[in-house]
Amino acid sequence: MSAAFTLSLDAMGGDYAPEIVLKGAALARLRYPNAHFLFFGDEALIKPLLLADKGLAAVSTIRHTDTVITGDTKPSQAIRQGRQSSMWKAIEAVKNGEAAGVVSAGNTGALMAMAKLIMRPLPGIDRPAICSLFPTKMGETVMLDLGANSQCDARNLVEFAVMGECFASAILGLERPTVGLLNIGSEEMKGTDELRKAAQILRGLHLDMEFKGFIEGDDIAMGTVDVVVTDGFTGNVALKTAEGTAKLFSTFLKMAIKSSWLAKFGMIFAKPVIAQVMARADARRYNGALFVGLNGVVVKSHGGTDAVGFANAIGVAVDMIARDLNTHIGQELARIAAEQEAVEPVELAAAGAAPQ
Amino acid sequence: MSAAFTLSLDAMGGDYAPEIVLKGAALARLRYPNAHFLFFGDEALIKPLLLADKGLAAVSTIRHTDTVITGDTKPSQAIRQGRQSSMWKAIEAVKNGEAAGVVSAGNTGALMAMAKLIMRPLPGIDRPAICSLFPTKMGETVMLDLGANSQCDARNLVEFAVMGECFASAILGLERPTVGLLNIGSEEMKGTDELRKAAQILRGLHLDMEFKGFIEGDDIAMGTVDVVVTDGFTGNVALKTAEGTAKLFSTFLKMAIKSSWLAKFGMIFAKPVIAQVMARADARRYNGALFVGLNGVVVKSHGGTDAVGFANAIGVAVDMIARDLNTHIGQELARIAAEQEAVEPVELAAAGAAPQ
Repeated sequence: MSAAFTLSLDAMGGDYAPEIVLKGAALARLRYPNAHFLFFGDEALIKPLLLADKGLAAVSTIRHTDTVITGDTKPSQAIRQGRQSSMWKAIEAVKNGEAAGVVSAGNTGALMAMAKLIMRPLPGIDRPAICSLFPTKMGETVMLDLGANSQCDARNLVEFAVMGECFASAILGLERPTVGLLNIGSEEMKGTDELRKAAQILRGLHLDMEFKGFIEGDDIAMGTVDVVVTDGFTGNVALKTAEGTAKLFSTFLKMAIKSSWLAKFGMIFAKPVIAQVMARADARRYNGALFVGLNGVVVKSHGGTDAVGFANAIGVAVDMIARDLNTHIGQELARIAAEQEAVEPVELAAAGAAPQ
Repeated sequence: MSAAFTLSLDAMGGDYAPEIVLKGAALARLRYPNAHFLFFGDEALIKPLLLADKGLAAVSTIRHTDTVITGDTKPSQAIRQGRQSSMWKAIEAVKNGEAAGVVSAGNTGALMAMAKLIMRPLPGIDRPAICSLFPTKMGETVMLDLGANSQCDARNLVEFAVMGECFASAILGLERPTVGLLNIGSEEMKGTDELRKAAQILRGLHLDMEFKGFIEGDDIAMGTVDVVVTDGFTGNVALKTAEGTAKLFSTFLKMAIKSSWLAKFGMIFAKPVIAQVMARADARRYNGALFVGLNGVVVKSHGGTDAVGFANAIGVAVDMIARDLNTHIGQELARIAAEQEAVEPVELAAAGAAPQ
């Protein structure tokens, strides 16, 4: 971005906080020279790390907080007892207009609960979702929800489709993204009632997307559609299953190469391209999930990531700020609401009233 | 197996039927010299293929059938109109005692619906499930349900755990398999009500398994547990996501190697071990999903597999017959029923009555 902007960082969230937060910000500063950082957390821990990097220190401010939301804190508990925490204060800085977005590697459930309470969902959004990019054969695919909502009704799935479409337009630069509903078969009769109802609604709406109907698990990696829509339970399992499988494959590969002298020799020549493949499947590259559907930019980093991964999560926040995603989503939702009111006032309401 | 046995094969099921069924059987005959085959399907198509392989012809019989269950036939339709089909007749042969098990690469939903109707579920089993092996870092993991039941209550999940445990004991030779419930976090509060209820019941039962609580998607490939229990929707998505990811990884690898002369040279030396890795992740190796919980052995092959894959599916049926899995499951279920009646008569009943 050309104009200066400030990012709010929860310096205490994640397995290796505050070190990787500071190191990640240092990397991000080199990529985004107009960025300023607000670090929320224990000043005694953050200050020495910040002073070690003069360039970063020059664009950063520390806001001391006393408490930390741990990984095992329940969302309800975090909301009741965590109002002085680094996480809460970091989100509040966005609400107050001090920062344009917030990044945290802390407890996902707590972050979502706090963000909903402090920022509020966008008008027309029932349930904000967790959204991220996946590497595919064709390039990259947007997938949501990745874990915010275990059970979803048809209305939620339709909202996810709209938000995913806006995300794909903004981030991947697609004019008319293709959207698919994740199911266990592509036939119309497959899956749950809510999935079939969501498909029916999406077929009827006039959106800036091409709705491709149902897709299956293997379509994610194939890149069959630009946006994969699913409930938070299925999305979370699919995301982690894919990560686990990629890791398994690279482990098998490393073990196999180690087991043979001939292979080790061959690898001297093949290593650069193998390294490329590994980099392409590197989870750090896709670190940084956006909480879509909120009045503000909130990005969640993997808790166990390193500085490179955290810098990438910061990059997601920068992209979202630059492309003004939330305004885009708001406009698309308003358009749907108007269309629904004019044409079929019953349909979305009926879907929303269905049991979850 | 040392004693002679007969397998019933749906020669018309799958994308490349009847060719791959015949070729698969030819491969299986070399592995299992005591096997006899009953081919159900169009005699005019099967006979010339069979006559081309004298060894196979010597241990095979053709039973002519006129109709075929296509891939887009609904299960309800298959049951009403498919009673003269190759699939129906092949299952019936097991029910009649003519064959010890059946293998089909046809329509999964139709196969399960017919098998339930013809063979009936084992006493104490509400919903039979689809069960298969997954390659993992530690070796192999059993996973179920892979798609028979989109929505499951706590009772179904408990039954899946018991059947999975028996499968793991029989196939992997484990005395006390570890079992995990697939969820979106390992904490007790995570997931749906039905998952939490299932976990509570499993903790209370005295089974030949070690219940490890909740596991996540990446635990599948890590091999954290021997048996992964999940509903059919999540299991199907996870299976296909893993397959898609493995295929993506190998595509990336092939593309990268092709792109560089140096890598191609190195590959001359590294190829044997790389081929090993590819073979380990080869979906054909894990072809053949068992329908557990039925009064008989039914194995489903991938519809798009080749002869090697189909031969492996036959291998799964042979293993199940040899190890008498169904008797083992029946005994374990009877033991639970007795335990439940003696100690907590309400618990399983309450779980079964819960909304799905």
